[in-house]
Amino acid sequence: MTGTRDQGLNRRGFVLGTVSGAALAMAPTLSGAGPDSSNKKTVLAQISKMHAENIKRLQDWIAFPSIAAENRNYPQGAEYMADLARKAGFTDVRLIPTSGKAGVFGRLNSGGATTLAIYFMYDVKQFLADEWSSPPLEGRLVPREQLGTVCMGRGAVNQKGPQNAFLSAMMAFHAAGKKLPVNLVLVCEGEEEIGSPHFGEIVMTPDVLQALKSCAGVLLPSADQKPDGSLEVQLGAKGIVELELVASGEKWGRGPQKDIHSSLEAQVDSPSWHLVQALNTLVEKDGHTPAVAGFFDLAKPLTERQKQMVATYAAEVPESVVQKQYGVAHWVHDLNWYDSLLRLYSQPTINIEGLVGGYTGPGGKTVLPHRAVAKIDMRLVPDMTAVDTLAKLKAHLLSHGFGDIEVNMTGGYDPTQTDENSKFMQAILKTYRNLGVSPQVVPRSPGSWPGYRFTNPPLSLPAGGFGLGHGTGAHAPDEYYLIESANAKVQGLDGAIASFVEILYALA
Amino acid sequence: MTGTRDQGLNRRGFVLGTVSGAALAMAPTLSGAGPDSSNKKTVLAQISKMHAENIKRLQDWIAFPSIAAENRNYPQGAEYMADLARKAGFTDVRLIPTSGKAGVFGRLNSGGATTLAIYFMYDVKQFLADEWSSPPLEGRLVPREQLGTVCMGRGAVNQKGPQNAFLSAMMAFHAAGKKLPVNLVLVCEGEEEIGSPHFGEIVMTPDVLQALKSCAGVLLPSADQKPDGSLEVQLGAKGIVELELVASGEKWGRGPQKDIHSSLEAQVDSPSWHLVQALNTLVEKDGHTPAVAGFFDLAKPLTERQKQMVATYAAEVPESVVQKQYGVAHWVHDLNWYDSLLRLYSQPTINIEGLVGGYTGPGGKTVLPHRAVAKIDMRLVPDMTAVDTLAKLKAHLLSHGFGDIEVNMTGGYDPTQTDENSKFMQAILKTYRNLGVSPQVVPRSPGSWPGYRFTNPPLSLPAGGFGLGHGTGAHAPDEYYLIESANAKVQGLDGAIASFVEILYALA
Repeated sequence: MTGTRDQGLNRRGFVLGTVSGAALAMAPTLSGAGPDSSNKKTVLAQISKMHAENIKRLQDWIAFPSIAAENRNYPQGAEYMADLARKAGFTDVRLIPTSGKAGVFGRLNSGGATTLAIYFMYDVKQFLADEWSSPPLEGRLVPREQLGTVCMGRGAVNQKGPQNAFLSAMMAFHAAGKKLPVNLVLVCEGEEEIGSPHFGEIVMTPDVLQALKSCAGVLLPSADQKPDGSLEVQLGAKGIVELELVASGEKWGRGPQKDIHSSLEAQVDSPSWHLVQALNTLVEKDGHTPAVAGFFDLAKPLTERQKQMVATYAAEVPESVVQKQYGVAHWVHDLNWYDSLLRLYSQPTINIEGLVGGYTGPGGKTVLPHRAVAKIDMRLVPDMTAVDTLAKLKAHLLSHGFGDIEVNMTGGYDPTQTDENSKFMQAILKTYRNLGVSPQVVPRSPGSWPGYRFTNPPLSLPAGGFGLGHGTGAHAPDEYYLIESANAKVQGLDGAIASFVEILYALA
Repeated sequence: MTGTRDQGLNRRGFVLGTVSGAALAMAPTLSGAGPDSSNKKTVLAQISKMHAENIKRLQDWIAFPSIAAENRNYPQGAEYMADLARKAGFTDVRLIPTSGKAGVFGRLNSGGATTLAIYFMYDVKQFLADEWSSPPLEGRLVPREQLGTVCMGRGAVNQKGPQNAFLSAMMAFHAAGKKLPVNLVLVCEGEEEIGSPHFGEIVMTPDVLQALKSCAGVLLPSADQKPDGSLEVQLGAKGIVELELVASGEKWGRGPQKDIHSSLEAQVDSPSWHLVQALNTLVEKDGHTPAVAGFFDLAKPLTERQKQMVATYAAEVPESVVQKQYGVAHWVHDLNWYDSLLRLYSQPTINIEGLVGGYTGPGGKTVLPHRAVAKIDMRLVPDMTAVDTLAKLKAHLLSHGFGDIEVNMTGGYDPTQTDENSKFMQAILKTYRNLGVSPQVVPRSPGSWPGYRFTNPPLSLPAGGFGLGHGTGAHAPDEYYLIESANAKVQGLDGAIASFVEILYALA
């Protein structure tokens, strides 16, 4: 279980929680006027009738957390996910074994011409109950000023709330006696919160792969609206490598093999200084730009169109609000807002997540530690890969005399990118606009999710998040998902479910 | 409370626990043949009779821990100390207020020609009871293979055991109806374990200072014997500055003012990289030699006599045993044993005690931390001072562009040195030899204790540790003090008490 403050953002859910975006036209109209209009109306009409059971299903799910890092509720959490899928109408549902936690796979054949893949995660992040204002496994409905009523609990928005809303949409079809306009393939993992180390095994399982090959795209149900109703469409995400750099007397062959008295530093080498010197080689003199040899070799610059997206974003989102939100007075290199955003969307990074060595408690303790660790994440842009970047880091350390420092990768994956002009992405953009939301389109999330498993060969599918609704606090205390909205521009649970009904028709 | 492993050495008690020293001549004979011989015999004869009460007093004291870092048992622990002093025969015992915890002061006027000061600490180090094999506040008597029976508890050797043995010696005089051969002045502090931040105030209290000025030297009761019976006499100790270097967005004016999502590192500066770069300037390319401008300016080289002591030590103490004890395969710069010991006794150091920043739990967490801390200790040799060295560190950081990094000193003091040829030190050496032990004499402890308050002006007194007996585990779990020795070369409690009787006569 982790013990640090959480910044309210997860690896995937990079959300500028309080940023005012473009003014919204109006509250969404939740029915269209196409050929499926009549069926859709019937389906949408079911949603409000099922409101109570849809909430109850979310609360029950929150009460049963799967936490991969703690091996909690495994394999029961996977079985629970499989049962939910079956109840929503998926057939052939089964667990997909991996070297780690099993995935869950299912299909729904509606006789549609189009098949859509849905990516789920059934695991949630660790939590410390003491830090919560409401019991984290209760999914209690609590009022939230200016927002309305939210369901508060671990996994509420990341990702049980949006996923349950998607399942609710499927159930609305069933209740209405209507077939879904598309066939579905469900791929679900239980290790997203530890970096999806075995998700590749799920995707590459022969019949899963075969089913995915038939799909037009991969949808990630989400709750994309900010508190003001605006939302971003991200055309991809950076990749990530998370790792620990470990300097130790044992591996170095110098310094002590256990913590010894600090006075001995006069005659004994220090693995901590060794780590500091190694770290110092990883960035340029600006204390920022990665200095690993070849680090940028595969990094593609932004296209003119991508720069245009950033310019639009910079014009629409006020810099001062974002600076205040982060507590940042100056962007790196004292860049202006637009240039800093260009970096945000285009630059690969090497970040220190954490430093741990020797005595870490209050005050001091006179030890010469035998071991020091830097927790690092590297963010990757196309066409960088996790494997290549990790290899370059190792080669860099070796060539600088730090070959003894262990590089223990704990998770990561390649960047993912989907063409803005793909039918899939156009359907998402069009659906949002039909629902009265003008999305801000950005080149990619500066955060990461393992979408490359879909967007890279052998599948090469478009993939992206979709969903009205709102929630926040992923990885943090008091995580919530909006149920009853007090703001017409922000959808509550029913509106979120309706948005999934809409996207299924749009993708058909 | 601290949570790290303890290396079994405290700031003061730098003890090569398992090192075989020179062969001992024989078991000590605990009575001499001088003019005081008859009185001394009478006193020594009391010791075995008081054995049970002497143990009980130690156990009771261990049961009542004063822990300055936790504000535990204050001011009751100071009062407890004062009561012990009164029971041992000190008069005019009173608490000496300071800006922190009060000290304890007392006198004993025996009509002797010589007055000796005794330095005590009444505080002990924090502990985690779970880590102990015996309850840390019980002072239980437990068998210890090859050693005999030990009293196990927090403070057993650091310093309640030796201090209780000294008080027991005083009580033996009283029981025998004999006057002490010297007058005594007791100065005691309750903040030794947090770096003696207010000990100067105790010493500079007018009547304490006045009393100390009348003294011939300052004795620190200790348990100096290693498990083989050998011991070291240290003619001083390095000084120390303990501090935290804190890089933060708040002070820097760059980077975030709270932990934010690590993906933002693309556009936001990182206080962690800033700290790494600052740290990197503190040592030379060898990853070891302090690079702070002027750091060595006041450091005196060893004299020829001091080098001779080191040579003798190097010849008597086997390198392989020490290397094995520390888990060290190579000394710094691949020095030979003697040259590495020269460094140990002569070189000031900058050591990283600990690194703490961002996420420090298992695995990773994608944050860009707003704050990172390096815990540093600097060891000083004569004529360096804590004030001057701290100022040089700050000036160095400022001149290298790291003036924003906070330098928070948590404790420290100047080096201490006593002339080997002083009467005081000669009496200690002679007493050990009379008791059958040939001490190894070293230029100073590479560890630290605040003896400079005595050895520097205005007092300029000789000061040093003394005491037969054995114990170890200061700051660590299972700290113990030997009560019944299974080895004739190592003294148990009664022998330790007797050694204090001997030194009082020797100093008279």
